[in-house]
Parts: sequence; C-alpha cells; structure tokens
Amino acid sequence: MQKYIAYQGEPGANSEAAIEQYFGSDAEALPCQRFSDVFEAVVVGSAVYGMVPIENSITGSIAENLDLLRKHNLYITGETVLQIQHHLLGLAGTVIDDIAEVHSHPQGLLQCRSFLDVHSNIRPIAAEDTAGAARQVAEWKIPERAAIANASAGVRYGLEVICPDIGDRHDNFTRFIVLSSQLSDVDKADKVSMVFEVEHRPAALYDALGVFAEGKINLTKIESRPIPEKAFNYWFYVECEGLFYRNTRKRLEADLRAQLQHLKILGWYCSEKHVAKKEQKHQIPSIK
Amino acid sequence: MQKYIAYQGEPGANSEAAIEQYFGSDAEALPCQRFSDVFEAVVVGSAVYGMVPIENSITGSIAENLDLLRKHNLYITGETVLQIQHHLLGLAGTVIDDIAEVHSHPQGLLQCRSFLDVHSNIRPIAAEDTAGAARQVAEWKIPERAAIANASAGVRYGLEVICPDIGDRHDNFTRFIVLSSQLSDVDKADKVSMVFEVEHRPAALYDALGVFAEGKINLTKIESRPIPEKAFNYWFYVECEGLFYRNTRKRLEADLRAQLQHLKILGWYCSEKHVAKKEQKHQIPSIK
Repeated sequence: MQKYIAYQGEPGANSEAAIEQYFGSDAEALPCQRFSDVFEAVVVGSAVYGMVPIENSITGSIAENLDLLRKHNLYITGETVLQIQHHLLGLAGTVIDDIAEVHSHPQGLLQCRSFLDVHSNIRPIAAEDTAGAARQVAEWKIPERAAIANASAGVRYGLEVICPDIGDRHDNFTRFIVLSSQLSDVDKADKVSMVFEVEHRPAALYDALGVFAEGKINLTKIESRPIPEKAFNYWFYVECEGLFYRNTRKRLEADLRAQLQHLKILGWYCSEKHVAKKEQKHQIPSIK
Repeated sequence: MQKYIAYQGEPGANSEAAIEQYFGSDAEALPCQRFSDVFEAVVVGSAVYGMVPIENSITGSIAENLDLLRKHNLYITGETVLQIQHHLLGLAGTVIDDIAEVHSHPQGLLQCRSFLDVHSNIRPIAAEDTAGAARQVAEWKIPERAAIANASAGVRYGLEVICPDIGDRHDNFTRFIVLSSQLSDVDKADKVSMVFEVEHRPAALYDALGVFAEGKINLTKIESRPIPEKAFNYWFYVECEGLFYRNTRKRLEADLRAQLQHLKILGWYCSEKHVAKKEQKHQIPSIK
C-alpha cells in the first residue's frame, strides 16, 4: 500500500517541506527529477498526490507548471503557502571568509543578490536545485564550497548554517498546489482554478472576463500563456474566490462552459487561509 | 557622436540580430551583460535605444523585462519579431558522432529537447547565453564540444553548422521591443503598452478591464506580475491595438488614468505588422 506524494527535487527541497506542512511529517515524499515527472507519477498512479510550486511572491508564476496543468488530466485539490528562507550552508567549522564558491539553483542565487553583491569574492555557480547543491557541498567536502538552501537541507546533509537568512526579502513565499487524478469533492470550496482559450477577435478577452463579472465570480488571478501552435495567441489560467457549494458547482461550470472556449476546470478546493482556520493536516488516501 | 543600441548578450546573440532587422546593418550594437544593464545604458544615455525580448511564442513572456519596464522610466518606441532558429554548431570538420557535449542557454536546450532526446549520448550543459556558448566552443577548440546557437553566431565565431534547425518547433518567434528615454511622438500609432495596479478588493480586476471595453480599446495581451512588497498582489502589463492619433492620445490617457491605479503608459508605437507594410528601416538619432 503506497501513499507517496511526488515532488520535484532532492530530499530537503522546499517542495518536500511543503508536503510536510500540508500532509504532516508521516507523509512519504517521492522525489522526481523534473516537474513533468511529478505530473506523470500522479497520472500513472505511482503517487497519490503531487506537490508543485505554482507561484512565488517575488518572482511570479512558475510557467512550466501552468503549462503542465493544461496538458495533463489532473486536478488541484488544495494549496499551501511556504515561507522561503535561504541560508548559506557549508561544512562544519567553516566561516564566511573561507568560502570561494556558492552553489544553488539560479532562483536561489537571484534572490540573494544583495548578499552576493556584498561578498563579491564568492563566485555564484548555478546548480539543478537548492537541496541538490547542499548535498553536493556535503559530498565534495571542500571547505571553500558552500550552498544556498533551506534549513532542512542543511540538517539532512549535515551542513552548518554559516550565514542565516541571506535572502534579499524576508517576505518571500511560495504557493504550492496539490495535484490529484480525482476532482476534489469537498462540500464547500472557496477557490476554483481553470484554464481556457479566447478567440482571436477584438474584445474577446474582455468578453471572457465579463462571464465572471456577470456570474459575480471574484477573479483574483489571471495569467496568460502562449499557445505554441498559434504564435502570439494565448490561453489563460484563472483563479477565482468565493463560496462554491457542491450542489451549485455544476450549474456554474455549465454557465462558464457555454461562453468560454476549451474550458477546463482544474479544481474546486479550499484555500490556504480557509484551511488554516481548521489547523489540521490533510489525510492521504492509499493507493490499492 | 554615438548611436549605440544596447542589448543583452554577446555578439551573435538573437538580440543583436533583432537590432539589425529593425535598424539595418549599420546600427552599432552595444553588448551588455544583463538585461538591467541594457535599461541602465538607455537611462544614462550611453545608448540611444535598447533592444530587449519581451515574449517568445513558445515559452511566453520574459518576466524579468516586464519587471524592468515597470521599474525604469523608459518608453517603448517600437517592436520587431524575429524568427528563432537553433543550429548545432561545432568546429570545422566535426560531425554529429564526434559530439559529446552541447553548450547553450537553458532555453536553447529546452527548445531542442526532441533532438537531445534522440541524441541522448550528448550531454547538455547550461551556458549564460547561446552566442556566448558558440564563442566558448570556438575558443576551447575541443572537437567533442558543440553549441546550440543561431547562424550568425556560427559565422561570427567560425563554427560550422553540424545539424541545421534542430529546434522542436519551426514556428518559433521572439518579439523584441525598442526602449528609449523619450516617448515616441509618431502621429499614428496602432499599439499602446502600459502597466497598472489594481486595488485588492473583489472585482477590482474586472472593473479595471471594463475601462478598456468602455473606451472600445482592444486589449490584446495581459500579463500579471507579482508586487514583491505585497505578497500575492499583482500589477498588470497590458497591450492594446487600435488607431491612436497624436491629437487624441492625451484624452484617452486621462480617461484611463482616472480609473486605473498607478497607471504608466509605456509607449504609443507602430506594431511590427504596421511597419512591415512600409518596408523601411528605422532611423537612429544621435546622442550629442
């Protein structure tokens, strides 16, 4: 009986921390190499859920995951917001003056730009992911090499925090979504995500958005993504907030479907703030 | 007297090709290390114009340049659409079976995924940019190393095309914008770009978009970008098409400004398709 939750990265990655935050510490996290592997794992059933980042409060949407949402037949069943903290991690006993190289994901390096500008003698080197950089630094055992990663990666690979919290911004949050092959059947959802296309004609985008206004649906986020086969045409990823009861969702979906092209409802679910009130971890169904 | 056009990358970069396409072959291109350096060069006047990519038809918007547009006091005065072709470039006399490593920008590698999947014995290695990868391959003089870059980078660094046009998609276009410290004063523009924020209240986004519908302004593109200081609040980058005459723009701008928060008009300019009809290159004013 498996209860795996798939995520991209190595043990110690922020996605793994998001799994623990949402499902609790007994959730079995399944590391995958690429985001597309996470989606595949849920599709084929080797994982019950997937946990992927959808947006960061500083850098914006993770476009690759928006595109994967459109391509796969999966649903969003929940979300969780993780505070991101970047630490400079090194071998035990090393201090900042020992460090000549720092390894991290390009986003990690970018988000610590002020620190790296001040310590311009330290060469930033791009790595596949932050936790992987921490693992490598631990394996290399070369005191001049450090990593930028979160605290749990440091603990996991036995590295010390040389400089804590070196990110440019302390209000750095990443929102993760929970992927499932089943549409959530929660009675009362306060959030809905969907994707749709608009026709290539004047005011098509405005008309599409009018559908939400007429339905008094509070559109809170809109992202446009290119349709590769139709240069400079777009499809849209939209999130709305409200009170969506199970017995009224079908009607709302039919109304939207009548007016939007290629509409796909990605899920009715409870937002982080809705769940936070309940202060409980989410249960993981088993795969038989 | 300088007439530099700043761009990000090394000689042979796609941005340099965009400069030649828009301004003609006698334009003096000024390579910059980062996109922010391009914006700075135009701000301080060391370049008359900047040329930066704003979106790709497959991968979408270049978020960093959207953010830089909002932060800098610069204007968009034109655009040009460049077809992107990726070639496998190597030392003279090498063939595909010689190649063990291929160097390119991560986007270049990503856009040639099918080719790299078929030739799985070739190790893809990330580089700062495509033209820089071509230069390095030429400098290394190691026959096992190849680059993915455009044809002009190959010519510039004396590399041969080992496999032509290896991108996954042939309809791969990047749209570039021309940056200036002066608002364009063209009499008849057919495109306008702007940024604005929306209040954090229900239907704020819909109301903002209603402004365009009431003014019968054809909104063709909308991108949301995070406001780092306000987690999960957004500002919007919007493009509209129409016929905007010089003598009516002030009134339209006042109408928009009355209803949108922190509105900044980035420029009234002629779209690529508008310019294409004229079949002429753009003139570059000199910096005194």
